[in-house]
Amino acid sequence: MKLEMICTGEEVLAGQIVDTNAAWFANTLIERGVECQRRITVGDRLEDLVAVFKERSTEADVIMVNGGLGPTSDDLSTEAMALALGVPLVENKEWRSKLEAWFAKNARVMAESNLKQALLPQGAIMIDNPVGTACGFAIKLNQAWLFFTPGVPFEFKRMVKEQFIPFIEEHFPLSEPVSVKKLLTLGHGESALADKLEVIPLPKGVTLGYRSYMPYIEIKLFARGQLAIDSLATIETEVKKILGHSVVAEDITTLDQEIHNSLVNSGFSLSVAESCTGGLIASGLVAFAGSSAYLHQGLVTYSNEAKVKVLGVNPQTLDDYGAVSIATVEEMAKGARGILDSDYALATSGIAGPDGGSDEKPVGTVAIALATKYGVYSQMLKLPSRSRALVRSLGTAIAYDMLRRELLGEAVIVDYSSFSRFSK
Amino acid sequence: MKLEMICTGEEVLAGQIVDTNAAWFANTLIERGVECQRRITVGDRLEDLVAVFKERSTEADVIMVNGGLGPTSDDLSTEAMALALGVPLVENKEWRSKLEAWFAKNARVMAESNLKQALLPQGAIMIDNPVGTACGFAIKLNQAWLFFTPGVPFEFKRMVKEQFIPFIEEHFPLSEPVSVKKLLTLGHGESALADKLEVIPLPKGVTLGYRSYMPYIEIKLFARGQLAIDSLATIETEVKKILGHSVVAEDITTLDQEIHNSLVNSGFSLSVAESCTGGLIASGLVAFAGSSAYLHQGLVTYSNEAKVKVLGVNPQTLDDYGAVSIATVEEMAKGARGILDSDYALATSGIAGPDGGSDEKPVGTVAIALATKYGVYSQMLKLPSRSRALVRSLGTAIAYDMLRRELLGEAVIVDYSSFSRFSK
Repeated sequence: MKLEMICTGEEVLAGQIVDTNAAWFANTLIERGVECQRRITVGDRLEDLVAVFKERSTEADVIMVNGGLGPTSDDLSTEAMALALGVPLVENKEWRSKLEAWFAKNARVMAESNLKQALLPQGAIMIDNPVGTACGFAIKLNQAWLFFTPGVPFEFKRMVKEQFIPFIEEHFPLSEPVSVKKLLTLGHGESALADKLEVIPLPKGVTLGYRSYMPYIEIKLFARGQLAIDSLATIETEVKKILGHSVVAEDITTLDQEIHNSLVNSGFSLSVAESCTGGLIASGLVAFAGSSAYLHQGLVTYSNEAKVKVLGVNPQTLDDYGAVSIATVEEMAKGARGILDSDYALATSGIAGPDGGSDEKPVGTVAIALATKYGVYSQMLKLPSRSRALVRSLGTAIAYDMLRRELLGEAVIVDYSSFSRFSK
Repeated sequence: MKLEMICTGEEVLAGQIVDTNAAWFANTLIERGVECQRRITVGDRLEDLVAVFKERSTEADVIMVNGGLGPTSDDLSTEAMALALGVPLVENKEWRSKLEAWFAKNARVMAESNLKQALLPQGAIMIDNPVGTACGFAIKLNQAWLFFTPGVPFEFKRMVKEQFIPFIEEHFPLSEPVSVKKLLTLGHGESALADKLEVIPLPKGVTLGYRSYMPYIEIKLFARGQLAIDSLATIETEVKKILGHSVVAEDITTLDQEIHNSLVNSGFSLSVAESCTGGLIASGLVAFAGSSAYLHQGLVTYSNEAKVKVLGVNPQTLDDYGAVSIATVEEMAKGARGILDSDYALATSGIAGPDGGSDEKPVGTVAIALATKYGVYSQMLKLPSRSRALVRSLGTAIAYDMLRRELLGEAVIVDYSSFSRFSK
């Protein structure tokens, strides 16, 4: 099956919005074993739309068309498809009833323009949209099935999952089952990962992919066919053996979700004292509803005075070792934990750059400590040649990983192999 | 001139990376008066590349091709273009010398594969890349000029600015001058803005566009032709008259940059105490190098205990008025300011949701205070029917705006017209 995607809308074409629907769609389909082979982005001109529908329908088997189903005069996908087919638009009674019911239920007056959303090209199969006023539709032109969906991301995603995937599974059954396993890694770049993993012999039907969620890289093991699927567990073991502690999670995209879940489930409380990470550790957790149950406080103590006054760091420690040091960050963590007797406290202090480095402690030096009721773990890492944003996000990720490991009862300080560490 | 873009690479097509180059390119060109009319995204298959070059070169005048110029076997854009033209690849002596010099200067051994990057289709014009090992090139096929650029974003952007824009300005001079004015607004959605502004008569050549940077919406006034440009100032005044305090900045995309600049330039110091915004105010500022000069501390005090212990909020105030109240947030701001006698302190406390609301204080209630050396300003806003993320980012933006207005000597508490406020 040859799958293509047509994205419509001036705002997408003109770069006013980044087309996350397209990336999500391709990625979702590939996990089901279907590759999107070409993507075409066009504006809202009727003649451009008609031309691209006609042109691609002679090449592709299935075309996902996204956008242009709204009520305004800019929304021309339906009209263009009718023109490409040479058929009239006819009202879909079922969708009109749904529209009327939707507006009645929400106590809103239906504008005349919304009626347009019940008009479909003659012969089209209406595709339900359970969460919006734009229905989708599927229709055949030349050799291709064209499948029309609205541009609103949550409507689009729901219709792809509930309607499009069953549709192609019915019309173009995959000859083989597929399976995906994802490993989240920390510390290696994509090309370094690829170099390290190329020694693993991949059986036929297994491919390795990478996806970047700064500062993490996700490794995607994709298997097509039962033999390939059966080999996944062995390959996963191989990957973990090679990458060791760089693999920090499975089947999730960031560590903050994992920390949030662990703390909610365990009932343990956390305080955070941040210098170079400047609130990233706390705000990553506050993004999740329910974080107030465990997050006692997040303190961004940039200045030495704040470290002394708020966290109780000894001024002598700052004088003797400096703000970016094992000694200071340990006192920060202990101080933050002590204020409300939290179960855990994380603290960071570092030089995110681009200025502020010295020969002894260059830009990219980051000290991190985890205080528990029983003691303090700490390390000072070297993260050179990285942007300010990357130093901060890596510091955050390593702090999360220290806490993650502690919560699992594993060693807190481990070697990620791509970072080196100052000796204590 | 008909401009199109071809984006190459499996990782872009397959959604492993979101194609920010494409959005940036379209947006950059449109500000110079040139519209990109179609964008095609293809993978790394040689025959697909050859087909798309041939096909689009009969339709477009200029085609920006992005990606596929690297040293690996996946990088096939150059070879595909030579095949499409029916010409051999020939070594570009100038680029080979540059490559050798680059590797020598960086004390690295040049891999055999890098030599490939000096091979161009016969007849191509080499395009310098001052920041990478992949040069670009321009060449004509059928009616179109194809302009090849590397996929690395900072290399691509630099070559577009320094080479591509002068290239099209020379080959396809614009008949008219263009100009853009951007206004950053807070509080209104895109359709509400469009409704409010549609009463403004736009002279020929002036268009209004919108771009969303949650929670801000940027209004873009675009003028083509001298008469249109001359009318921009009047239209800008009209827009500001209609939107009032919703316009919070000009020609920048977020308020944190403006606050950072103001504080660096003024020498004033800031402390922040956050509850519902959970570190967003502080981390927005810490993202800028040099913020340590003015940011004394950022305290995320989620629990009542932390508000009492860290900020010195009176427990009686919490009992009498609750954590989300004018009284509490004022004490939080005063407490945060007092720790290090900062010039200013911002404090927030609110109910970001989705749970935790009551009839009296529903989800979306956000109290914000700004403490100065001379007193405290505060307001409690109603931000209903918004996601947790939007309540938090709006709270952050309004807090920034209060400080921005104070630093300008303007009234701190103003009516944004799209939010209502609890009476004190």
